[in-house]
Amino acid sequence: MFFSLKNFMIQILLVINIGSIVNTFIAIFFYALSVKLIYCQGEKEEHIVIDQQIIQKKQAGEFAATLITDGMIVGLGTGSTVRFFIEALAAKINNEGLNITGVTTSNKTSSLAKSLGIKLASVDEVPMIDLTIDGADEVDHQLNGIKGGGAALLFEKIVALNSKKNIWIIDESKYHEVIGQFPLPVEVVPYGSHHLLKKFLAADMQPTFRRTATGERVTTDVGNYIIDLHLNRIEYPQSLAYFLEQTIGVVEHGLFLKTVDEVIIGGNQPTLISNTKP
Amino acid sequence: MFFSLKNFMIQILLVINIGSIVNTFIAIFFYALSVKLIYCQGEKEEHIVIDQQIIQKKQAGEFAATLITDGMIVGLGTGSTVRFFIEALAAKINNEGLNITGVTTSNKTSSLAKSLGIKLASVDEVPMIDLTIDGADEVDHQLNGIKGGGAALLFEKIVALNSKKNIWIIDESKYHEVIGQFPLPVEVVPYGSHHLLKKFLAADMQPTFRRTATGERVTTDVGNYIIDLHLNRIEYPQSLAYFLEQTIGVVEHGLFLKTVDEVIIGGNQPTLISNTKP
Repeated sequence: MFFSLKNFMIQILLVINIGSIVNTFIAIFFYALSVKLIYCQGEKEEHIVIDQQIIQKKQAGEFAATLITDGMIVGLGTGSTVRFFIEALAAKINNEGLNITGVTTSNKTSSLAKSLGIKLASVDEVPMIDLTIDGADEVDHQLNGIKGGGAALLFEKIVALNSKKNIWIIDESKYHEVIGQFPLPVEVVPYGSHHLLKKFLAADMQPTFRRTATGERVTTDVGNYIIDLHLNRIEYPQSLAYFLEQTIGVVEHGLFLKTVDEVIIGGNQPTLISNTKP
Repeated sequence: MFFSLKNFMIQILLVINIGSIVNTFIAIFFYALSVKLIYCQGEKEEHIVIDQQIIQKKQAGEFAATLITDGMIVGLGTGSTVRFFIEALAAKINNEGLNITGVTTSNKTSSLAKSLGIKLASVDEVPMIDLTIDGADEVDHQLNGIKGGGAALLFEKIVALNSKKNIWIIDESKYHEVIGQFPLPVEVVPYGSHHLLKKFLAADMQPTFRRTATGERVTTDVGNYIIDLHLNRIEYPQSLAYFLEQTIGVVEHGLFLKTVDEVIIGGNQPTLISNTKP
């Protein structure tokens, strides 16, 4: 009986242990399943957001093309939203037989416009641009913008300056109360740029050289570097602009203040925001 | 007797006429001689002035070389005065076996320094430049300067910014109460530069694109254009600097304010002027 009790106890313990092991496996299985389900859900939501952005970009671009009329000299910005505009414009020129001259803001846009048969001129070959359609990386409620995600800020600024009217086309994810979430691009002369980076670092501006996928420094169309400033919130954009303009080695910065006349946010019914400031 | 009187009168008139003609020739001869004499005098004086300038440039350059000591990282400016400094420095390095690293401000200076065996580094390869010796096209009594006659203003400014101490070497013809007689160089992005010229024209700044002897636009070491502003007197250099820095398309301007620590004016006993401003 003593032995039989011992055996009984061992069997009980074995059953409990086997049960524990089985339970553990069951728990692991359900945990993995739930992780997988949550992950897929996240991926799906992300896809929906990205799809929504692309749709809005396309809507904004196509709407902007309806604003172009025969004989206009049109500034052509740079970026993924502008791409939709240029494609829609090329189709419109073709369908309606319009006489349009494009003035581009980057080699990339020049190539695209040429491939679609849009007639081009340099900014110096035209007296004034009638209307420039460009994108923006971030826009605040006063229509201050950050541009330069495509590294074309210098030519974008020059073209904007020489335009009677400037319109930006964006998806709603770009429209914020305060700008600064998007890293501020600063175009700098390569000679001395390491010292400039240190200067921005000392000013707590979280600077980084923009790099290609292979780790090399991005160079602009005129051979400069881009330093991105990770500022999070730019409370006083005008002061920051002054500071950057007076910094030796800075060719241009991505703050576009008092530049744009209207912003179009993509949607089934695109939203137009006018710059009502004096 | 009647005929004889007539002949006599004719002969008198002939003598008078011949006399006049001879006098005219004599007068022309002396006039030409005096013009020639005055012209030669002017040429001689001009030569004396130019010789004096060259002597002072050489004196200033050679004096600056005496300030360089072993182990220094030395900024090497650009221009005809700096050329004398670099030649004297190379001789000193050679004679005294000094260890000197040069940081240059133009391709031209790099070539010269290399040809003379001076060891060079990029501004980004050194922690800080100990002393930069550069020229200036005009300096006022507050030691504000105009630089860029050699089209190297951008790199000159970057090197100056990264120097513990800056010294300019000049001949006395460059030292004025107010700057502006020397045309102010502005380095501009080629794209849009025609519009920029028109903007300066509208502001009554007498702008001209700098051109080569063959009439082509001068391009800087990084491929920009130079617009020279013919202002005559710059009463408020700081305001002008702000205006230019905020002008889109301007990469740098030739106003060097609060930059230099000392100016050396060539002479048998070179004159040193220190910047005593706070």
